[in-house]
Amino acid sequence: MKFATISYNGGQLYGAVTDEGVIALSDNFPQWQSLKEVIEHGGLPLLEEATVGRDVSHANGSFTFDIPVSNGEKIICVGVNFPDRNAEYNDGSQAPANMSLFPRFSRGFVGHEQALVRPPESHQLDYEGEIAIVIGKKGRRIDQADAYNHIAALTLCNEGTIRDWVRHAKFNVTQGKNWDKSGAMGPWLVPFKNASQLDDVLLTTHVNGELRQEDRTSRMMFSIRRQIEYISTFTTLVPGDIIVTGTPTGAGARFDPPRYLKPGDVVEVMAEGIGTLKNTVKDET
Amino acid sequence: MKFATISYNGGQLYGAVTDEGVIALSDNFPQWQSLKEVIEHGGLPLLEEATVGRDVSHANGSFTFDIPVSNGEKIICVGVNFPDRNAEYNDGSQAPANMSLFPRFSRGFVGHEQALVRPPESHQLDYEGEIAIVIGKKGRRIDQADAYNHIAALTLCNEGTIRDWVRHAKFNVTQGKNWDKSGAMGPWLVPFKNASQLDDVLLTTHVNGELRQEDRTSRMMFSIRRQIEYISTFTTLVPGDIIVTGTPTGAGARFDPPRYLKPGDVVEVMAEGIGTLKNTVKDET
Repeated sequence: MKFATISYNGGQLYGAVTDEGVIALSDNFPQWQSLKEVIEHGGLPLLEEATVGRDVSHANGSFTFDIPVSNGEKIICVGVNFPDRNAEYNDGSQAPANMSLFPRFSRGFVGHEQALVRPPESHQLDYEGEIAIVIGKKGRRIDQADAYNHIAALTLCNEGTIRDWVRHAKFNVTQGKNWDKSGAMGPWLVPFKNASQLDDVLLTTHVNGELRQEDRTSRMMFSIRRQIEYISTFTTLVPGDIIVTGTPTGAGARFDPPRYLKPGDVVEVMAEGIGTLKNTVKDET
Repeated sequence: MKFATISYNGGQLYGAVTDEGVIALSDNFPQWQSLKEVIEHGGLPLLEEATVGRDVSHANGSFTFDIPVSNGEKIICVGVNFPDRNAEYNDGSQAPANMSLFPRFSRGFVGHEQALVRPPESHQLDYEGEIAIVIGKKGRRIDQADAYNHIAALTLCNEGTIRDWVRHAKFNVTQGKNWDKSGAMGPWLVPFKNASQLDDVLLTTHVNGELRQEDRTSRMMFSIRRQIEYISTFTTLVPGDIIVTGTPTGAGARFDPPRYLKPGDVVEVMAEGIGTLKNTVKDET
């Protein structure tokens, strides 16, 4: 079962996704305006029940995908989290003791099958395929052993980056990681029910059909359990918060010469059990 | 005229601040649930009109101050923005070409006269007095000449920091800058009406009555006009967004030995024409 936020006829709704399209569910739950509110109220199981026996209300092609949760309190991304990525930085440093973290804003992301936007200021638009978790239960100083109990759902992220703006200033990657519509999230939420959905999952990124990134969540330097523990040390995680859990080696910047995205390219981020987030690229008009 | 968000009797409301207390205005504007919505609809002048001739409804001592705008889309802080601060880093580097930026989450701040919280994980709680601007008009790629037209109001920020967590990881200051209740914002919003409110304003920070930080906005390395221009290059600024514009030299970490905040300390951030943001410090319980 999977749930998406979609735009249709000028409005937005949420529903269950099937091969043929979407079964709209928003009207069944007028008390919840968005998937964030569904998650806040632990409503994903009710959405599952409401889906049974229903026909598709919105056939494929009649709607567009939005990012699944756009109105959460925060999106926190984990940097440099697969074994070969620290080496990629090529600065002679040891593996870090703690994970690097940076926030992103929702408006930096487009939905599934929408175009990433390459701005006129830079042509160094790069891809980073990642698994994202959506928090379902509030917590502070969450133990690793309890961490998975705080996850409501999974989705995917193309943590698209304007590479030369990442180190535009002396500190922090903020401006390279927050260009409007430079990344993507989706295609949908998959309710999180057991550890096997996260512990050893294959994650790949293809550009124009060519494999560029491939690794398994079991090889993360900082596990998702540890991410939840560490982040919740300093900030309270609340329902709707999203953690983007890190990308494997193989982003475009790591090739010589670099292989940045250009208009017409197709990027596909895939993870077992979640799906495929597919986006094209266009120049800003 | 100045407007605050306050908590009273378990609820939250907004109103005009006088020497004797607050004139509640929320009930006059049921269409706007918060000061963010007031600002989104350009409603500050209407609040000013509604204040005329009214008596204080909530006397000082009967309510607590909240942060003025807690539900904006984003809070972006400018780092290392006064002449002596780059030198303070003592790393031999030149002044940077572009400003350093990092986001903070609302839950990292308490309101005026509330206690900053020192966590058990670190006793390196530090102060940074700053002026904050609240965006009132949506914009992308805003010209410096037009930048001030996008500001709705001014407030103050104690951009409180857990110093040893700022460089806890290899990149980014995220975790040192986002401890729950480690900073403060307020005491209120002052509507922004002309350039003289920002161009050459004295900004000070006192700890227990001792002057620790003192500088003028005219000496910023990156002016507030430039901040709006630069940030809006990559992300759309929207009403309710907050830019925290940088702190003068003299944070506690810069003393030898460092002078971090401890329970019972009183920190006062003051700027001409805005007011004084005053906070105590307590240990987390």
